[in-house]
Amino acid sequence: MNSVIYITGVSGSGKSTIGKLLSENLKIPFFDGDDFHPQSNIDKMKSGLPLNDKDRQGWLLKLNDVAKAQLQKSSCVIVCSALKQAYREILKKDIEYHVKWVHLTGGFNLIFKRLNEREHHFMSSDLLQSQFDTLEPPKDAIQVDVSLKPSEIVKNIVEQMEEKSEFGLFGLGVMGKSLSRNLAQKGFRISIFNREVKGKEEHVAIDFKNKHKELENAHAFSNIEKFVNSLQTPRKIMLMVNAGKITDMVIEDLLPYLSAGDVLIDGGNSNYIKTKERYDYLKSKGIHFFGVGVSGGEEGALKGPSIMPGGDKNTYNLVKPYLESIAAKDVNNLPCCTYIGEEGSGHFVKMVHNGIEYVEMQLLAEVFTILKTMGNNPDEIADILESWKPKAQSYLLSITIDILRKKDRNEWLIHKIVDKAGNKGTGNWTTIATAQLGVPGTLIASALFARYTSFYKDERIQASKHFEITSLPVNLEIKDVLNAYQFARIINHFQGIRLVSEAGKAYNWQLNLSEIARIWTNGCIIKSDLMAELIPVLKEDDNILKHQVIINQVKLLKPSINKVVAKCMLSELAIPCLSDAVNFLNNYANSRSSANIIQAQRDYFGAHTYQRTDDATGKFYHTNW
Amino acid sequence: MNSVIYITGVSGSGKSTIGKLLSENLKIPFFDGDDFHPQSNIDKMKSGLPLNDKDRQGWLLKLNDVAKAQLQKSSCVIVCSALKQAYREILKKDIEYHVKWVHLTGGFNLIFKRLNEREHHFMSSDLLQSQFDTLEPPKDAIQVDVSLKPSEIVKNIVEQMEEKSEFGLFGLGVMGKSLSRNLAQKGFRISIFNREVKGKEEHVAIDFKNKHKELENAHAFSNIEKFVNSLQTPRKIMLMVNAGKITDMVIEDLLPYLSAGDVLIDGGNSNYIKTKERYDYLKSKGIHFFGVGVSGGEEGALKGPSIMPGGDKNTYNLVKPYLESIAAKDVNNLPCCTYIGEEGSGHFVKMVHNGIEYVEMQLLAEVFTILKTMGNNPDEIADILESWKPKAQSYLLSITIDILRKKDRNEWLIHKIVDKAGNKGTGNWTTIATAQLGVPGTLIASALFARYTSFYKDERIQASKHFEITSLPVNLEIKDVLNAYQFARIINHFQGIRLVSEAGKAYNWQLNLSEIARIWTNGCIIKSDLMAELIPVLKEDDNILKHQVIINQVKLLKPSINKVVAKCMLSELAIPCLSDAVNFLNNYANSRSSANIIQAQRDYFGAHTYQRTDDATGKFYHTNW
Repeated sequence: MNSVIYITGVSGSGKSTIGKLLSENLKIPFFDGDDFHPQSNIDKMKSGLPLNDKDRQGWLLKLNDVAKAQLQKSSCVIVCSALKQAYREILKKDIEYHVKWVHLTGGFNLIFKRLNEREHHFMSSDLLQSQFDTLEPPKDAIQVDVSLKPSEIVKNIVEQMEEKSEFGLFGLGVMGKSLSRNLAQKGFRISIFNREVKGKEEHVAIDFKNKHKELENAHAFSNIEKFVNSLQTPRKIMLMVNAGKITDMVIEDLLPYLSAGDVLIDGGNSNYIKTKERYDYLKSKGIHFFGVGVSGGEEGALKGPSIMPGGDKNTYNLVKPYLESIAAKDVNNLPCCTYIGEEGSGHFVKMVHNGIEYVEMQLLAEVFTILKTMGNNPDEIADILESWKPKAQSYLLSITIDILRKKDRNEWLIHKIVDKAGNKGTGNWTTIATAQLGVPGTLIASALFARYTSFYKDERIQASKHFEITSLPVNLEIKDVLNAYQFARIINHFQGIRLVSEAGKAYNWQLNLSEIARIWTNGCIIKSDLMAELIPVLKEDDNILKHQVIINQVKLLKPSINKVVAKCMLSELAIPCLSDAVNFLNNYANSRSSANIIQAQRDYFGAHTYQRTDDATGKFYHTNW
Repeated sequence: MNSVIYITGVSGSGKSTIGKLLSENLKIPFFDGDDFHPQSNIDKMKSGLPLNDKDRQGWLLKLNDVAKAQLQKSSCVIVCSALKQAYREILKKDIEYHVKWVHLTGGFNLIFKRLNEREHHFMSSDLLQSQFDTLEPPKDAIQVDVSLKPSEIVKNIVEQMEEKSEFGLFGLGVMGKSLSRNLAQKGFRISIFNREVKGKEEHVAIDFKNKHKELENAHAFSNIEKFVNSLQTPRKIMLMVNAGKITDMVIEDLLPYLSAGDVLIDGGNSNYIKTKERYDYLKSKGIHFFGVGVSGGEEGALKGPSIMPGGDKNTYNLVKPYLESIAAKDVNNLPCCTYIGEEGSGHFVKMVHNGIEYVEMQLLAEVFTILKTMGNNPDEIADILESWKPKAQSYLLSITIDILRKKDRNEWLIHKIVDKAGNKGTGNWTTIATAQLGVPGTLIASALFARYTSFYKDERIQASKHFEITSLPVNLEIKDVLNAYQFARIINHFQGIRLVSEAGKAYNWQLNLSEIARIWTNGCIIKSDLMAELIPVLKEDDNILKHQVIINQVKLLKPSINKVVAKCMLSELAIPCLSDAVNFLNNYANSRSSANIIQAQRDYFGAHTYQRTDDATGKFYHTNW
C-alpha cells in the first residue's frame, strides 16, 4: 500500500534535508511543501509577518492534492511544518489510511542557532518563538531528535517505521494463537497481546512468541498501552476474545489509547445485533469497527479460515490485505474472504454459517443412529461414510469418519463420549433470527432443540425406563440413507441461505449470496462439494429450489427420504432433522395446504379474517361462524 | 371493600358537622380528628400559637392508626384539616387503596364569619389566614362548597362518590368492547374510553354505550382527562389497545392525569420483556402496572375469559374483584383467573398459552390433511371429529367441527378460504423464548414455521409444479389418527408447561403450574379435557411425562403415531408437528442418543471438549483427533 510520509517540525528543524535524504533512502519522490506556497504567502513571510490560518488553508489543501496525486503512482515524502493538529487534518484529508507522520524535535536554542547560520532562507529567525508557541506536537508520529547527524536521523526514522507493527492481535486463545501464526507466516509484522492473570494466564504472549519461529519478528505484550503504541497508525487491531460482555470491556480498555481512524476488528462469534450497536458506538468516537466472522476452528485459523467481514465499505481496503492473505483459498486460488456488507452483516452471515453447521452435524448424528440400528459398528459406519465421499464430500463428513475410527485402548472412543451436546449461542441466535425474520428455519430449530434435549440426560435415563422405546433394527438400503442425507442437506442449505437473503433485505445489506457460498467452499466447517455447486446456482436466484439442477436432485432423492423416515418411525428412532426436511418440502411444494383450517380457526375465535380463493382482489372476509 | 373517608378543609369549614351527618347517612362510624390531639397541641392552639409540623407528626400517625384499625371492621368517616399534601401522605400510609378524600371549600370571609360566631371553640380566628396560606388543595378529592346547607353538602358528597366509576376501560376494539359489557353485566360502574379519529373512529364510546342496555350506567368518553377524572382513586384502568408502540404512547397520554397509587392494567398481548420494562418505568412514577393475559377471543371476553395477571402481589387485591368477577368459571365455579407472579409473568404465561394454541391448531390442520387424503369430505371429517369428543374434547376441536360444516352457497366454506395463516407475534415470541431458555420447543417452532411457509403462496404454487408431490391416498384406521393426535397434544403440553416452568425459575416468579392449568380449563382457546386432567398431574411434578397416568397414555398411543407418521411420509403429506412429537419422545426417552457424535465433532474442530461415560466425575477431555 502506498504511503505519504509527512515530515513535520518548526522552521530550522531540518525538515528539507532529512526529507530529501529519506526519499533517496526509500527511493520515492520528495516534495518540499514550501515550493507550493502562493507568492502572497512568501511575500508576507519575507516581510517578517507570520502567516495566519487563512493564508495557510489553500496551501495545505494544495499539498493534500499533491499527496493524493502521487499516491496513485507511488509513495512519497512531503515536508511541511504542520504545527497544528488542524493543519494536519487538512493534509490527511481523504487519505488518512495512507499517511505516516515523522516529527523532528529539538530545543529552541539549538534550532535558533541553526536558523541564524543559514543563508538566503526567506524566514526571519524572530518568528521562531511564535512557532514554538503554536506547536501542538503530533501524537502517533515517529519522533526524532534533530541533534543527531542527518544520516543517523534517517536511519532512526526507517528503523522506527520498520519497528512499528502493521497489525495487532488481541487475545491469544485457541483462535487468536492460530490467527497470529497465520499472519506471521504471511510475512506481516504483528503485535500480539494477552492479558496477565496471576496463576492463570502468565506470560502468555511472550511464551507463545518464543515457542514459534515464525513469530520471531512479532512484538509480544501484556500491557495494553504498549501494545497499542507498537502499532502503525491507523491501527488495525483484531480482537479474539470471548463474545459478550468481555468484548465490551476490552473495547473500553483499548479506547483511551486509540486515535480517530483506527480500526477494531471483532473476530469473535458476537451477536450481530451487538455488532451493530458497537459499530454505532465506536463510529461516534471516530473508530471503525468491523464485525468479522471467522470459521475454520483451530486448524482453519492457522492454515486459512473462511472470513466474513462486515463494516464500512471504504474502510475495508485497510484490513483487506491482512484478512485476504490469511484466508483459505478456493479452487481458483481466490481468498475465502469477501466484503459481506455493512455493520453486523459479517457476524450475521457467520451466525447462519453456524446454524447450517448445527444441522449438518445433527444430520450426521441421525445417519449414525440409522446405520448403527442397521447393525453396523463405528468402523463399518466409517467405511460406509467413506464410500459416500464421491457424492457427499464435506469437511464434517471427513471428520466424522476420523471420529468413528478413533480407538481408545482398543475400544471405539465414540462409545465412551457422553451424549450431551453443548452449544455456545450461534445456533440459538440463528433460531431466533428465523423466527424474527419470518423464515421457516425448521431444521436449525430442530438441531438446536436436539442439543437441548441431549442435556436432559438424567430425565432421559428415567424416561427410557418409563417409555421403553424399542429402537428396532431398521431394514434399509444404504443408498436410501445416503439419498435421505443429501436431500436433507439441500433443504438445510435452502433454509440457511433464505435466512441470509431475508436479513439482507431487512437490513439493506446488499449481499452477494453466490460470493458468500464461494467463501464457504474452503477454510470453514461447512465446506462441501454441495456448497461449491451452489455458487453458480445462487448467481441465478436466491432460491436454490428454483434451479433445475437442484430440482432434479431433490426429485431423485425424495422417494428415498420418504422411505427412510417412514421406516425410522416404525423403529422408533429420533431423526428430527431428516423428518423436518421431508415435511418442509411436502408443505413448501403444496399449492393447496391445510393452512386454510388455521386461518378459519383464527377468524372463528379472534375475528382475524381470511381471504377467499374466489376473490383475486385479496379482500379480507369475516364470517359469523 | 372498606373505605376511610377523610373530610378535609380549613378550620371553620364545617368538617365536624358534615362528617357526622355523612357518617349517619352512610351508617358508618365517625371520628373527629381533633379528639386525638395530645394535650400539648391543644394548649398550644388555645394560646393562639399555630402547630408546627413536628407537633402534627404523632397526631397524624395516630389518626392513621385509627383508620387502619377501623378498616378491619368497617368503613368510617374521619375529619382532619390535613391542609398539606405531606399530612395527607401520613394519613393514607399503608392504606392508600382504601382512602377517599372529601375537601370542603369556601372563601375567607364566609369562614371567618362562621368562626367568629362559634362559641367554646379552642382555636383563635386569627389563625385562619395562616391556614389559607398553608392550604395545598388536594387533587383527587371530592370538592364541595360550604356555602350550601349541610344536608345538601352531604347529598352532594354521596352523589359524587356514587358518580365516580370504579373501573376504567381504555380502547374499544373487539376485546375492549366485550370486556366492557362483561364488567357492566357484573354490576360494576365503569368508564369507557375510545379515541376520536375523524372519519375512522367517531363517537365510538358513546355509540357503544347507547347500543347496549347493560352500559346505561357506564360513562363514555373520548377525552382522556375527563375519562381519568371520572374514576375513583386509586384508579384502575385496563388498556385494551394494540401491543407494541401504541401501548407506550397510550401510557404517556395517560400519565399526566394519573396519581401515585393508580393501577394500569395492560390486557393486550404485550411481549413479557416489554411488560417488565413498563413495570419498572411506571413503578418509578408511583403507578402500579399489571401485565394481564386475557384469552378467550371476542366471545370469551364477553362471557368470561381466562385471565392471567402478573404484577405486584400486594396490589393484586385492588384489581382482583374486577378480574375474578368477569373471568370464566371452572368446573368447581372458581374463577379462571389467578395471580400468576411478578412483573411480566402474566404476559409470559399468556404467550405460552398462545404457543400451545398454535400447535393445537396446527395438529388439527394436520389431522384434516390426513382425513382428507383418506377420502373424506369436510362434513365427513366433522363427523369423525365429533366422534372424538368423548376422548379429545377441546374448544378448538369444537370450532373446527363448526368450521368444517359451514356452507357458503351450498359449498363448503373451508374450500374457499385461502391457505395463508397469519400470526401476530405470540407464536414467534414463544419460539424465541424456548431458544433463549434452553427448552426444546420443537412443536411450537414447527407450528410457527408452518404458518410462515403458508405465506410463501406464490413460491408454493411454483414449487408444486416442479416437485410434483404425490399426496397419495393414505390407508389408516381412524383410531390411529385419533391416537396420533392425542399423543402429539400431550407432547405439546409437556413442552409448553416445561417452558413456563423454566421461565419461572429463570425469572424467580414462584409459579403454581397446577393453578395455571386450572385457569386454562375454561374461558380460553386451549381449554380441553386434557388440560383438566393436568391439574392434579401438575400438583405432583412440573414434568407431566413423569406421571404414571400420562406415561400409560403415551405408551398406549405411541404405536399409532409411529404408524401414522410413517404412512404419511410415504404419501408425502406435510405433518410437521405430528412428526416432531414422535421424534421428541424418541429422543427424550433415549438414555443413549447420538449426541455423542455432535460433541465429538465439536471437540474435533473447536476443541470444545467432552465428558466420558467411564468417568463419573464429569471431567472434560480433549482428544487430538
